[in-house]
Amino acid sequence: YAPTLCAAAQTSMEQGILPPCHHHEAVHDPQLVPCMCPIFSCPWEGHLEAVVSHLRQAHHINILQGAEIVFLATDMHLPAPTDWIIMHSCLGHQFLLVLRKQEKHEGHPQFFATMMLIGTPTQADNFTYRLELNRNQRRLKWEATPRSVLECVDSVISDGDCLVLNTSLAQLFSDNGSLAIGIAITTNKVHNSEAEM
Amino acid sequence: YAPTLCAAAQTSMEQGILPPCHHHEAVHDPQLVPCMCPIFSCPWEGHLEAVVSHLRQAHHINILQGAEIVFLATDMHLPAPTDWIIMHSCLGHQFLLVLRKQEKHEGHPQFFATMMLIGTPTQADNFTYRLELNRNQRRLKWEATPRSVLECVDSVISDGDCLVLNTSLAQLFSDNGSLAIGIAITTNKVHNSEAEM
Repeated sequence: YAPTLCAAAQTSMEQGILPPCHHHEAVHDPQLVPCMCPIFSCPWEGHLEAVVSHLRQAHHINILQGAEIVFLATDMHLPAPTDWIIMHSCLGHQFLLVLRKQEKHEGHPQFFATMMLIGTPTQADNFTYRLELNRNQRRLKWEATPRSVLECVDSVISDGDCLVLNTSLAQLFSDNGSLAIGIAITTNKVHNSEAEM
Repeated sequence: YAPTLCAAAQTSMEQGILPPCHHHEAVHDPQLVPCMCPIFSCPWEGHLEAVVSHLRQAHHINILQGAEIVFLATDMHLPAPTDWIIMHSCLGHQFLLVLRKQEKHEGHPQFFATMMLIGTPTQADNFTYRLELNRNQRRLKWEATPRSVLECVDSVISDGDCLVLNTSLAQLFSDNGSLAIGIAITTNKVHNSEAEM
C-alpha cells in the first residue's frame, strides 16, 4: 500500500447549500478567480496567487504537505449535499481535493472526488493525481490529470469525470463513518518513467 | 501499463432478459450449481467441474488464457439489461468475468463488473483479481477477492460490491463503443510480496 509521507490524517468537513456555479460569470480577467470553496456563496474574487491564503483564512480549509498523503473524511453519513475539502501542497504547487456527496438521482446519493490545481490549465496538464481507497480486501484507484480551479468543479462533477462512489462502495471503504482517501501527485514526466508493473 | 500476456482481445457479447436469481433455490448438493451464465434461463445443473465445459459448449462463452489479459467488450451502447461474459483461465483455475449494464435507477444505466471463481468460496479467498481501465489520461483500477460461482452474481451486483461505472465514465474509457478491460489475477501470497509502491 502507498506509504503516507504525511502520516497525520486531517479532516476538513463542511456542509451547506451548494450555490450554482458562478465561475464563468463576470470574470473578465481570466486570471481573476472567484472563491473556489464550492460550498459558500462567497463574494470574494482574486488572482490565483491569493486563492490559497483566502481559502485558509476565510474558510479555514486545512493544507496537507507531501507527495503522498491520506485525507480522512469523517461523518460520511451526513445528508447530501455535503462537501469535504482539503488543500494539498506538493511539487511546488497547491491542489484542492473536493469530495462531494450529491444526489443526482433523488434518494440515491453518490460521492464524487476530484482534484484541482490552484493554477492554470496549462500548469495542470503537467500533473497526474491518484486517489486510492483501500479497505476490506478491496482497492479502488482513480488516476487523472487535475483540472485547474479556473474551470468549474461543478461541471467536473456533473460530467462524472472523477472518482464516483455509490453509497454501497463508500460504506465498504469506510471505517466507522470515515473514509480515508490516499492522495498522490506526480509530474507526468516522473509518472511515465515510474510506470507501474 | 499492464502487459497483456494474452495480447489477442476477444469478445463475448450476449444480451437477453435477466432471469431472477435462482442459484440458491432447489440446490440440495452444495457442490451442484445451476448454470452460471446469468443471462439465460438455463435449466442445466451440474457439479463445479462441469461448469466450464457447459459454458463453452452450451453458451459459447470464450475462454482467455494468461495471468494478465485484456477483454474487449463491444457495443457498450446496447440497452440495459445486457451482459458481457468471458472465462479466464490462469493459475490452474477458471474465472468468470461478468460485465453487466443495468438500470438500478430508471433511465440511468450503469455498468457493473466482477469476477467469480469457478470453484468454492474457500478457493476463491486465495485470489485477488484486478480490473483496470486506462484511456484518455485516466485510469481506474478495482481490486478485490473474487466470489465463488456458488454465490449469486446478481447479489454481488445489487450490493454494488464490484467495479461500478456510470455512463459518463464508461464513455470516457470506451473507444468507438468498445471498452477494454485489463484483467489480472494473483494469488494472495504472491500479491502480498509484490505489493505495489
